[in-house]
Amino acid sequence: MFTVIVTLDVRPDRLPEFLDGIAANARAALRDEPGCLRFDVHRVNDEPNRFLLHEIYRDEQAFFQAHRAAPHYAEWLKVVDRCVQTKTNLYATPVDLSERP
Amino acid sequence: MFTVIVTLDVRPDRLPEFLDGIAANARAALRDEPGCLRFDVHRVNDEPNRFLLHEIYRDEQAFFQAHRAAPHYAEWLKVVDRCVQTKTNLYATPVDLSERP
Repeated sequence: MFTVIVTLDVRPDRLPEFLDGIAANARAALRDEPGCLRFDVHRVNDEPNRFLLHEIYRDEQAFFQAHRAAPHYAEWLKVVDRCVQTKTNLYATPVDLSERP
Repeated sequence: MFTVIVTLDVRPDRLPEFLDGIAANARAALRDEPGCLRFDVHRVNDEPNRFLLHEIYRDEQAFFQAHRAAPHYAEWLKVVDRCVQTKTNLYATPVDLSERP
């Protein structure tokens, strides 16, 4: 599996458009992409213009190819362009808790 | 709901003990705490001594009171003390995707 953690700083005057855009992207990814297993959107409590995305994919291909080729991702990029000031991606791997004693 | 994102840098010589300890803590939280809804453990791909925890609780009380009063949390603190170099907590709130158009 493959994890993507995205940190986003949103333009304060574009918050409603951002929220609609990320909700549409997350719902479509979960609905239309068999390789998208999890897509959480969190708002940081003491920095209300900062958001974190927690996404889990079946593998890297499900993110870098299937997710990025999806029509909802193209729409999302337009929202990023209009509403997001900074965006950083962190890539990780889920630890299989059942493998530990 | 209440989200906790924890970033941990682990002593390289303590990695196996850390992995056993976080797995035990995560599994016990999911099993024994009705207010713990999600507990993911991720290892950062290009920094193998860095881990991220993604935890979702029913509310703040479920984290600050119930989770921190649990016996597995006391065990986890011992693991942190032995194995973890730096630990930072970020608090956030899940965005309800179903509320957006």
